[in-house]
Amino acid sequence: MLTKSLRVEGSAVYTPKKKLYSNELDKELGLEEGTVFNKSGVRVRSLAAEGETQSQMAKNAAFEALQCAGMKFEELDVLVCANGLTQQLIPCNAALLQREMGYGNSGVACFDVNSTCLGFITALDMVSCAFAAGRFNKAMIVVSDISSVGINWKNLESASLFGDAAAAFVLKASDNTANSSTILSAHMKTFADAVEVCEIKSGGFAKLAYNYTSDNHEEFLFSMDGPKVFKIAAQYINRFVDDTLAKAGYSMSDVDHVIPHQASKSAMELIRRRLNIPESKLHRIIENAGNCVAASLPMAFHDAIATGRLQKGQTVLLLGTGAGVSFGAILLRY
Amino acid sequence: MLTKSLRVEGSAVYTPKKKLYSNELDKELGLEEGTVFNKSGVRVRSLAAEGETQSQMAKNAAFEALQCAGMKFEELDVLVCANGLTQQLIPCNAALLQREMGYGNSGVACFDVNSTCLGFITALDMVSCAFAAGRFNKAMIVVSDISSVGINWKNLESASLFGDAAAAFVLKASDNTANSSTILSAHMKTFADAVEVCEIKSGGFAKLAYNYTSDNHEEFLFSMDGPKVFKIAAQYINRFVDDTLAKAGYSMSDVDHVIPHQASKSAMELIRRRLNIPESKLHRIIENAGNCVAASLPMAFHDAIATGRLQKGQTVLLLGTGAGVSFGAILLRY
Repeated sequence: MLTKSLRVEGSAVYTPKKKLYSNELDKELGLEEGTVFNKSGVRVRSLAAEGETQSQMAKNAAFEALQCAGMKFEELDVLVCANGLTQQLIPCNAALLQREMGYGNSGVACFDVNSTCLGFITALDMVSCAFAAGRFNKAMIVVSDISSVGINWKNLESASLFGDAAAAFVLKASDNTANSSTILSAHMKTFADAVEVCEIKSGGFAKLAYNYTSDNHEEFLFSMDGPKVFKIAAQYINRFVDDTLAKAGYSMSDVDHVIPHQASKSAMELIRRRLNIPESKLHRIIENAGNCVAASLPMAFHDAIATGRLQKGQTVLLLGTGAGVSFGAILLRY
Repeated sequence: MLTKSLRVEGSAVYTPKKKLYSNELDKELGLEEGTVFNKSGVRVRSLAAEGETQSQMAKNAAFEALQCAGMKFEELDVLVCANGLTQQLIPCNAALLQREMGYGNSGVACFDVNSTCLGFITALDMVSCAFAAGRFNKAMIVVSDISSVGINWKNLESASLFGDAAAAFVLKASDNTANSSTILSAHMKTFADAVEVCEIKSGGFAKLAYNYTSDNHEEFLFSMDGPKVFKIAAQYINRFVDDTLAKAGYSMSDVDHVIPHQASKSAMELIRRRLNIPESKLHRIIENAGNCVAASLPMAFHDAIATGRLQKGQTVLLLGTGAGVSFGAILLRY
């Protein structure tokens, strides 16, 4: 594999103003105080305001990331959106964002990649290949998800877990100099026998909205079988991570930081135990953000950069699972 | 740019059995015979059977393409779906297809790219970059669209134009030998000021299905302002194609075949006239297929290969427009 060097020129996160505290939810649901927090590991989440759209949220993160990079929108070769949830059926989220940002006449290429919660990893994987191939030199990856509108609030597991957020990364191709980051390994596996553990069966062209009735309401909502997702993750995670690291000739002890998709408290505990990751290396933001679908991983990555916890030259493993079920990882020397 | 060499190992198309002839539609709508054909240039289209899904259609094309390539599904490094229309909101179409094909335990990486009607061009662009970067060696790109369920049949323009189909391409990375194809240039531009000329506003997370009422039925259907799409295409197409060819140091006279997205008879006429393309070089399949959304372009590409019209060593320009509005092109020495 070619060495794929790039620079993270800027990154940013946007979270809506409205907050939902888990102890409010305890009261609302008539549960003992602490029940929701103990179940989910989430203390507070941000929820999009009524009518706030994914591209509006995305715009805030995108402008801040560009400012941080000192780059103008028009300089970008490509804008890739990797939302787990699409804003509308046509066109792609990236085109909607280009327009929302006021650059609808810029010509900057726009497309989406979709691997649900793994979107950021897939987008970074493909953008780094396009950099290596000389196809693009400057790219912005943006992820923005509003899951709160599609949650089945009757299902405590979903109701206690999900938040809304957007994250943006501005990236530049680079010669392999000391000042750059390097993708050491990228890996993905999909086991679709488990499609039904994490699904929204409807809303696409197999069952468009006009099939909606109040009787089939739940088919149009997100459904997740947490214990089954957990079981599948446990089945595959060790082999998957071993293979990711082996591609680069690394072992877990060579990794300085593990930034997982913030799926749930128990999912991250599983990762920590099964991969034997010291607590000091594991990044968790779920307590104050919830699971923000595809935005969670770039949020945690941004947090690691912004807080200075992740230092230049250190090795970071971005790792996640997504509906499909898919596993994705990128090993990066930052 | 790195030379991106690859081999088209196999390709196939699937169309449903049910046919809709434009002269039947004339009768149904009380129009003079020939009206629909004269307007759309479409004589007959295939329509998915009631309950037939995009992944079922895709499966047929995918198995045939693999057979043609002499390759097993499990040998693939990645399955990329590039549907213009998503089958369901979660997970991605590629995961649904992996399962439909009976390889849900294979682990083959699955993700989608989405640039609406340009999906195949974007997927081929990214896969060729991943080949050049050594990230993947064997890939299948599948596109499957069922637009018939989302059409506003009251709108004659849509009702006379769209068909259902699937297409699949099996690709292999290659050293730059005489036996390979080479991507000479890839280009994309998006002008999202024109988002509203081609849209399904609803069905995504901005307006989920549970907002559906019979009063806002049309918001949940495809809407297109053909004359405006036409105007935007006319405004940008020459500059866009000139830039695509210039990247490779080519001019239109060096191009042996132009395979456009089969958007409409008038859109292809526009391309022919504005780019001064001899009729013998332009590939049209719209008369017997209609506009099959993102499946149209790979269908026409497959047709050019299967009929022997496109010969090894010849130069072909894959060219399209999609909702966004986006323009996309790949110049390929086949």
